[in-house]
Amino acid sequence: MTQEYVRTDGRGVDQLREVTITRGWSAHAEGSALIEFGDTRVLCTASFESSVPRWLKGKGRGWVTAEYAMLPRATDTRSTRESVKGKIGGRTHEISRLIGRSLRAVVNLEALGENMITLDCDVLQADGGTRTAAVTGAFVALADAVEWARDNKRVAKRAEVLTDSVSAVSVGLLADNTAALDLPYAEDSTAETDMNVVATGSGDFVEIQGTAEGMPFTREQLNDLLDLAVIGTDQLTQIQKQALAE
Amino acid sequence: MTQEYVRTDGRGVDQLREVTITRGWSAHAEGSALIEFGDTRVLCTASFESSVPRWLKGKGRGWVTAEYAMLPRATDTRSTRESVKGKIGGRTHEISRLIGRSLRAVVNLEALGENMITLDCDVLQADGGTRTAAVTGAFVALADAVEWARDNKRVAKRAEVLTDSVSAVSVGLLADNTAALDLPYAEDSTAETDMNVVATGSGDFVEIQGTAEGMPFTREQLNDLLDLAVIGTDQLTQIQKQALAE
Amino acid sequence: MTQEYVRTDGRGVDQLREVTITRGWSAHAEGSALIEFGDTRVLCTASFESSVPRWLKGKGRGWVTAEYAMLPRATDTRSTRESVKGKIGGRTHEISRLIGRSLRAVVNLEALGENMITLDCDVLQADGGTRTAAVTGAFVALADAVEWARDNKRVAKRAEVLTDSVSAVSVGLLADNTAALDLPYAEDSTAETDMNVVATGSGDFVEIQGTAEGMPFTREQLNDLLDLAVIGTDQLTQIQKQALAE
Amino acid sequence: MTQEYVRTDGRGVDQLREVTITRGWSAHAEGSALIEFGDTRVLCTASFESSVPRWLKGKGRGWVTAEYAMLPRATDTRSTRESVKGKIGGRTHEISRLIGRSLRAVVNLEALGENMITLDCDVLQADGGTRTAAVTGAFVALADAVEWARDNKRVAKRAEVLTDSVSAVSVGLLADNTAALDLPYAEDSTAETDMNVVATGSGDFVEIQGTAEGMPFTREQLNDLLDLAVIGTDQLTQIQKQALAE
Amino acid sequence: MTQEYVRTDGRGVDQLREVTITRGWSAHAEGSALIEFGDTRVLCTASFESSVPRWLKGKGRGWVTAEYAMLPRATDTRSTRESVKGKIGGRTHEISRLIGRSLRAVVNLEALGENMITLDCDVLQADGGTRTAAVTGAFVALADAVEWARDNKRVAKRAEVLTDSVSAVSVGLLADNTAALDLPYAEDSTAETDMNVVATGSGDFVEIQGTAEGMPFTREQLNDLLDLAVIGTDQLTQIQKQALAE
Amino acid sequence: MTQEYVRTDGRGVDQLREVTITRGWSAHAEGSALIEFGDTRVLCTASFESSVPRWLKGKGRGWVTAEYAMLPRATDTRSTRESVKGKIGGRTHEISRLIGRSLRAVVNLEALGENMITLDCDVLQADGGTRTAAVTGAFVALADAVEWARDNKRVAKRAEVLTDSVSAVSVGLLADNTAALDLPYAEDSTAETDMNVVATGSGDFVEIQGTAEGMPFTREQLNDLLDLAVIGTDQLTQIQKQALAE
Repeated sequence: MTQEYVRTDGRGVDQLREVTITRGWSAHAEGSALIEFGDTRVLCTASFESSVPRWLKGKGRGWVTAEYAMLPRATDTRSTRESVKGKIGGRTHEISRLIGRSLRAVVNLEALGENMITLDCDVLQADGGTRTAAVTGAFVALADAVEWARDNKRVAKRAEVLTDSVSAVSVGLLADNTAALDLPYAEDSTAETDMNVVATGSGDFVEIQGTAEGMPFTREQLNDLLDLAVIGTDQLTQIQKQALAE
Repeated sequence: MTQEYVRTDGRGVDQLREVTITRGWSAHAEGSALIEFGDTRVLCTASFESSVPRWLKGKGRGWVTAEYAMLPRATDTRSTRESVKGKIGGRTHEISRLIGRSLRAVVNLEALGENMITLDCDVLQADGGTRTAAVTGAFVALADAVEWARDNKRVAKRAEVLTDSVSAVSVGLLADNTAALDLPYAEDSTAETDMNVVATGSGDFVEIQGTAEGMPFTREQLNDLLDLAVIGTDQLTQIQKQALAE
Repeated sequence: MTQEYVRTDGRGVDQLREVTITRGWSAHAEGSALIEFGDTRVLCTASFESSVPRWLKGKGRGWVTAEYAMLPRATDTRSTRESVKGKIGGRTHEISRLIGRSLRAVVNLEALGENMITLDCDVLQADGGTRTAAVTGAFVALADAVEWARDNKRVAKRAEVLTDSVSAVSVGLLADNTAALDLPYAEDSTAETDMNVVATGSGDFVEIQGTAEGMPFTREQLNDLLDLAVIGTDQLTQIQKQALAE
Repeated sequence: MTQEYVRTDGRGVDQLREVTITRGWSAHAEGSALIEFGDTRVLCTASFESSVPRWLKGKGRGWVTAEYAMLPRATDTRSTRESVKGKIGGRTHEISRLIGRSLRAVVNLEALGENMITLDCDVLQADGGTRTAAVTGAFVALADAVEWARDNKRVAKRAEVLTDSVSAVSVGLLADNTAALDLPYAEDSTAETDMNVVATGSGDFVEIQGTAEGMPFTREQLNDLLDLAVIGTDQLTQIQKQALAE
Repeated sequence: MTQEYVRTDGRGVDQLREVTITRGWSAHAEGSALIEFGDTRVLCTASFESSVPRWLKGKGRGWVTAEYAMLPRATDTRSTRESVKGKIGGRTHEISRLIGRSLRAVVNLEALGENMITLDCDVLQADGGTRTAAVTGAFVALADAVEWARDNKRVAKRAEVLTDSVSAVSVGLLADNTAALDLPYAEDSTAETDMNVVATGSGDFVEIQGTAEGMPFTREQLNDLLDLAVIGTDQLTQIQKQALAE
Repeated sequence: MTQEYVRTDGRGVDQLREVTITRGWSAHAEGSALIEFGDTRVLCTASFESSVPRWLKGKGRGWVTAEYAMLPRATDTRSTRESVKGKIGGRTHEISRLIGRSLRAVVNLEALGENMITLDCDVLQADGGTRTAAVTGAFVALADAVEWARDNKRVAKRAEVLTDSVSAVSVGLLADNTAALDLPYAEDSTAETDMNVVATGSGDFVEIQGTAEGMPFTREQLNDLLDLAVIGTDQLTQIQKQALAE
């Protein structure tokens, strides 16, 4: 890691942008959090339902799923609504699935019972890292919904529904091959390699998605990126803990 | 109007809920406003584009259009995303069209030139009156986008693009036939008659949509409702002026 | 109201076009009517089904719903079929919902029992006022379907299913601000304000939808329009009665 | 052919149902015909457009195409609209393509020039044989649209656009293997074999579609069916001529 | 039939292309066959399911259905996937329905019991005659699936599920009006008349679909075409028998 | 890595399944390969087109894209066609995008000129690793299409279009946490962690996608998996070279 590189916002390559989590932003949802990674702003709501999808009926287990979407003017240029197009794009699908898998990795679905929690992650404003902000914020909303369910006796108290916490961060090789943490849009759109890492509070990996957008990357560069990612997810774990402690 | 009726939130029948308009909520849009009517919260963004739909090309006129949508958990019960269903529902269509028509009523499309402004009204939280809040907030976002376009020489300075302001409010006959202004969800869902009124800053009507959900209504009741609506839109006009003056 | 204005078809401003209702036009439907308002021609069929939508099951109430559509060459220029586009447009949705609401306003859904009546209103030829003709004709088809159901012991005889009749008419401010009744396409497409009024046989309002297409309208103009509308719906009520008496 | 068989409507096995063609039923279309084969009633409109689909541009030839559809309550049981389902069913597609091919068989597309005629065949009431009635009626509407185009100098007068006439009829093997002409729904739904034959006015075949719904059919039975079909299309050709002569 | 005509591949006008059937090409399906008619290559799989569509439940009968599709680059020019377009085209629908009807003509649905067999016919490479190859190959896959079902006691042994075999072939009038059997793409695309004939192993007809693409055809030409078709289906019946005997 | 673990097919944990590449399987495509990884069988075709998507027009660069799909009975249980569902699922989208990105990583889009190559990867039979087989086979089809384009002077000869080769393999932590290479379905469906690695012929990474399906994985386990993946992609590179040398 070359510390000399000057980032557009003056951060060190191993620094997160300012992260803010506002719990309970939504009056109706069983859990909710507005999470901000710099200018990226994602509203995460958790909806608890006392039923499961048909394919899970009668198996004594619950389900956690997620849907990601962007408001049309969350980005610099307005994009057409997917509801207007009549179909969901590949990117949306991919990210929704990633968020769902990431959260299920820390949920004991048996302890959840035959209930379903749906996490809606709507990007109100985008500046890079929307999917990682979504995973991180969705966990907080999920934790609150699980708490709500326990308080309202919708799940058994005995077993722990959440086995760990989970957060996510992006890392990347900038144009000059400097490895950097938490890329805003300006850096992300010109990065050689872009990687999203999802990790548990205990520090293990749930998901690693690294893509060479320009030059293929070496094993050594991969290691540098993972080192940075772990710094990021460790800090996000702390921020989640503080938010949930308030 | 029986003033004795006690509303769920203690308001008089001719009082608006607390209305807040936060201009510039979105970093990317040419104009934006987060508008709140009590617990109803709508994010309105205005996107300026230097082109018009195909059917308007070469006619020297611009276009203003709107799209309304609700986040899945804006309401008490989660609803399926229209993007997931693959089609837009009738209610969404109706409201989007209403907002577009309402705004165009105060726009000089010739003065706008061959440019298009799209108003996205996304309901982040719903408690009745989302369409009227959307119209009222969208006007503020539109005014800012027009200002932006003038500052950036995207429209000619000579002619006024906006000929007036526009706002909207709901009125209704509550369960006991009391006429009341600005109905929250609890009142709206049990009202006998529900009416949305869109009016200009000068006090003329742009749109009146009154529907008997229960008993048909009389000409006299209609007059009572319109009296209340005018009180509401007059106040909303003032609130818009203040917001735009800041 | 200026009576001097000469309408394209020579009518007085307070006169309906010739209205014809042909009951039983369809051999299969439980009720049907071909209704004509001048050159506007709408086929209305009522289909009775001994079941209700899922969300109504077990509640002891029935449902009345409507679907409006236009044949592709009902209008001067051929329009693409909505089945070919793969989706229903906003206008179609809006009108279908209006017809359904209008009819339900005069139906005792409890007396209907757990049965559903679907009104299909297909515009075979269009010349303005298709939605108001559809409401007016659909009521006749509905009345026949209710009669059929009583004759065939599909609903209990004791309670009245229909609490009143319902009809609809359009009114508008023509280009010179003259208020006029029952606008054909030529007048409707250049009107300053366009209003559709749905009223019961007893003369109360079920729905009022007024839209300023050009200049916003004043309270006084609104009153003039409502006066004309009431003249129209009163006459349509008589025409419905005659048709049902034959 | 056993002449002893008694048909539901008392016809001989080689008799058509009463066929009526009402030209000019639609005020807007360049050509139109309401055609009735007994209780089957199809509205055929021809829309002339001075352009061709993109794949034909610049080739000096025109195009004739058709769209078939059924009103939801054309049949005994209401069927869901294809616009509501969001897609066109296989049967609709098949019949639309059949009508288009049948008409193009008698059109000189070069003589039509770069123009397109779309035939809309909407079944208002169905009692078997809707596709054959549609072909037969669509030809009349097409002939009128071609005439309109010649009168309005939209096609060159020198060459003949129509090279022949075209009509269609159904034949089938009834439940007892009797071959019969022009099957109503009651016979069609229980027939062993169902065949639709499209023929020119000169008596040649444009399309033969025979399907064994029950028992496979022999070469001899096929010949019997074709004999009957030719009787039918010969008569339909006369009826078309009379209609066009009026 | 003029035997002098020289076909592009040197065959006689009454000769099939080389036909190959590879049974069991798919490891997972209950029955499967890769069938080749010259360069046309269709993979047919039969999937057995112990349930029937909802409309057949409780009627003691089974169902056989088919779905036809083409890989995007089965043809000379790549075509857009129907999954990407979001809808199935008319041609695909038509052929899927033809294959399903053809197979059901030789299935005793009562003997099948409340089970469903779905035939998927995917064209891996196309050179004319894909639908007839699909019918012919699908029968072999179906026969194996029925055998599997009997071996696995999924259908009763007593009654015969298959009442006969079924195969299909194309015939056509080439550009010079020569009647010819089994047309490859080069001949098919320029043929005056194109006909597909589906026949049972016993030599009766299940389906005849003849279309004049150019000149209408006479009764005599039809007879010539049917003579050739019978030669073709007789040979295909033998080839199916050999394949099933191996 | 515990070498003691006995795999279902007796392979060592660092052994690929038998890999076969049949070049030129398709008669029509500019490049094609049928690739088999054990029982997984994917048909890859490359379609060359002398144009680019609209957003690339006039930029002097080409495009390489991919579409992945599965035949309905490629798997043990038949799945509904995406064309029938009317939309493409998230998994399909994800894999199509992965294949496209992987191939573009080794293509010099400037050297390709304003041309597009579309890789269709259709899974004819699935037994785990379909996306990695698709990437590996698609590269061979792509190489042949590039060669075809050079031979036919559709791209300039001077610059190299392909900068390297690319292949992909799956690795995973089996149920007992043994790291293993190239997982068939039986292992993949019960693996704790599943990882797909795309690498260039030179040994650098293009894409790493690792997902904890069960327990989160440690940095050490990640390293073991990457070691195995590199063994796999090195061998696949050799197999590709041999196939292309034939």
